[in-house]
Amino acid sequence: MTDTVTLEHIKDAYARIKDHVHRTRVFTCAQLDDRASAASAPAKRRKLYLKAEHEQKVGAFKIRGAVNAIMQSDADYIVTQSSGNHAQAIALGCKVLGKTGLVIMPSDSPTVKVDAVRDTYSCEVKFCVPTQEAREAMSAEVVKDLRAKHGQDKAEEIHPNQDIRVVNGQGTIALEFLEQQTDLDAVVVSIGGGGMIGGIAAYIKAVNPKIKVIGAEPEAAKSAYMSKKAGELRKNPPNTPINTIADSVKSSLGATTYPLVRDFVDDVFIVNDDEIEDATKFMMERAKQVVEPGCGVAVAVATSKALYEKYPDLVNVGVVLCGGNIDMSNLPWKKK
Amino acid sequence: MTDTVTLEHIKDAYARIKDHVHRTRVFTCAQLDDRASAASAPAKRRKLYLKAEHEQKVGAFKIRGAVNAIMQSDADYIVTQSSGNHAQAIALGCKVLGKTGLVIMPSDSPTVKVDAVRDTYSCEVKFCVPTQEAREAMSAEVVKDLRAKHGQDKAEEIHPNQDIRVVNGQGTIALEFLEQQTDLDAVVVSIGGGGMIGGIAAYIKAVNPKIKVIGAEPEAAKSAYMSKKAGELRKNPPNTPINTIADSVKSSLGATTYPLVRDFVDDVFIVNDDEIEDATKFMMERAKQVVEPGCGVAVAVATSKALYEKYPDLVNVGVVLCGGNIDMSNLPWKKK
Repeated sequence: MTDTVTLEHIKDAYARIKDHVHRTRVFTCAQLDDRASAASAPAKRRKLYLKAEHEQKVGAFKIRGAVNAIMQSDADYIVTQSSGNHAQAIALGCKVLGKTGLVIMPSDSPTVKVDAVRDTYSCEVKFCVPTQEAREAMSAEVVKDLRAKHGQDKAEEIHPNQDIRVVNGQGTIALEFLEQQTDLDAVVVSIGGGGMIGGIAAYIKAVNPKIKVIGAEPEAAKSAYMSKKAGELRKNPPNTPINTIADSVKSSLGATTYPLVRDFVDDVFIVNDDEIEDATKFMMERAKQVVEPGCGVAVAVATSKALYEKYPDLVNVGVVLCGGNIDMSNLPWKKK
Repeated sequence: MTDTVTLEHIKDAYARIKDHVHRTRVFTCAQLDDRASAASAPAKRRKLYLKAEHEQKVGAFKIRGAVNAIMQSDADYIVTQSSGNHAQAIALGCKVLGKTGLVIMPSDSPTVKVDAVRDTYSCEVKFCVPTQEAREAMSAEVVKDLRAKHGQDKAEEIHPNQDIRVVNGQGTIALEFLEQQTDLDAVVVSIGGGGMIGGIAAYIKAVNPKIKVIGAEPEAAKSAYMSKKAGELRKNPPNTPINTIADSVKSSLGATTYPLVRDFVDDVFIVNDDEIEDATKFMMERAKQVVEPGCGVAVAVATSKALYEKYPDLVNVGVVLCGGNIDMSNLPWKKK
């Protein structure tokens, strides 16, 4: 069993999963370039390269890690807990790979994500109190029950971001991105539990350490920002619902991802919900791409004054558009 | 001056405009294919090819016709009236080509479109009562005033859909589409004033008459449907605001486009606002593409029972995603 996140493991993961995931396109948007260019004083011509994981299967990068983990698991029953996108990914992965999936979702999950897991991918859903602690507790309980019923090795939990196999799977985003765009100065990545940025950062620093890896977090869930600052793992306040429109990045770093963020991520920037809403709408109204607020977090940082004041030399900036799952009947902002 | 819509004129238009417009991608969406495949009984495997004009400059195909017309005009002052997308196209075209633009917009135009014309493209906007008649009357008046002030040949109106140069410009969508996808059985196109489908149909029937050209209209503005049925031009009821969420396709056919629709369009299907809303949301939630309801009209028809009951042999179906200009702070449907 893989127990580290490395270039070789990410390459292996890619060989394993590539027939099950989309090689998403990298594209540009002139109006977004203008915004990033104008973000510094004096203005500087910049170009943003957007990796379209919102067009990935299940509408988010999570399918990469989920499939990589499921393909390496001998269990018949795969249990997970997730705020949404990983749930869909496990559900689709189990369906395609012939396993039975059981997903714990917080009771305030967006309808569009619950429907996708249950209806589109025929996976069983259990709801729990919307805190990370409650999800983890219920997940452990479900695994225990399944093992009692079917046998010790028949059920396994795949954690959405602390499972090493998941993190190696997410690292394949960087593998594709660096093949598709060879002149990147930086890659900006949203951080929830850190599985995506952990895999991406490990890969990038092994291949070309000059490329900056920049994390992006909502102010209301800034575990990585605090951890970097403290020099040790800092979680979001326990047993407290987190109040941000960026529902897909509410998790804290964990034992697997903190060391990766510490060692391979150059910096972490935080943005507030107004900035997240603005960036998310900008992607929709100008780039015509549906992204979720958790993705808007990275776009907000990649077009921020703060980023280019600190790193004025950045010109070719990659941004991972990590997901596009948002309920169009119930957008998380007010009508104007 | 070009006075017809022909293959040669469309090829000329393409040579003229191609450095000013995007060659938009053609892409597919597995979930949309599933929907079209399941639309007939028995189900039949179908593939929808989507021409991404929502990613075109100004967020809609209209830039093609606008630039083609402006480049052939000797006037310094370009006047137009438009419900939105053509307004933006004329505004950007004038800016790029060094002309002065004046745009009449209906008072109920979406804010996002008015802002784009005025703020993004620095074009003067005048508002009028939201009927086609009022727009046309004010437009004629503005041209008259400008000619009185600057000289007879200094000001000219470019009609959003009845100007032959505009129609030839829109035909370049088909030129690209047939190069990009060579096995299309049909192309489905939304119809407002008929400029887009007129150019597309003329091109397609000259190149490969076997490809069906299918028009799509909202129930509330079915001028083409009624005209085909009557065998003569039928306009929407005069001086009556038209009630549909598909704000970009409220116009009637006119003297230029009716004969093109009569001669080159195989059939016209109508859909109601529920179907338009559903298709528009589907494009956003599943394909992750922001399209406007006027584009949802074509998507609704291309995934409808009615289309495949009448044309069961269609397998590879092209759909023009004509525009993506929609106000994300004020979506035209209720929260759920």
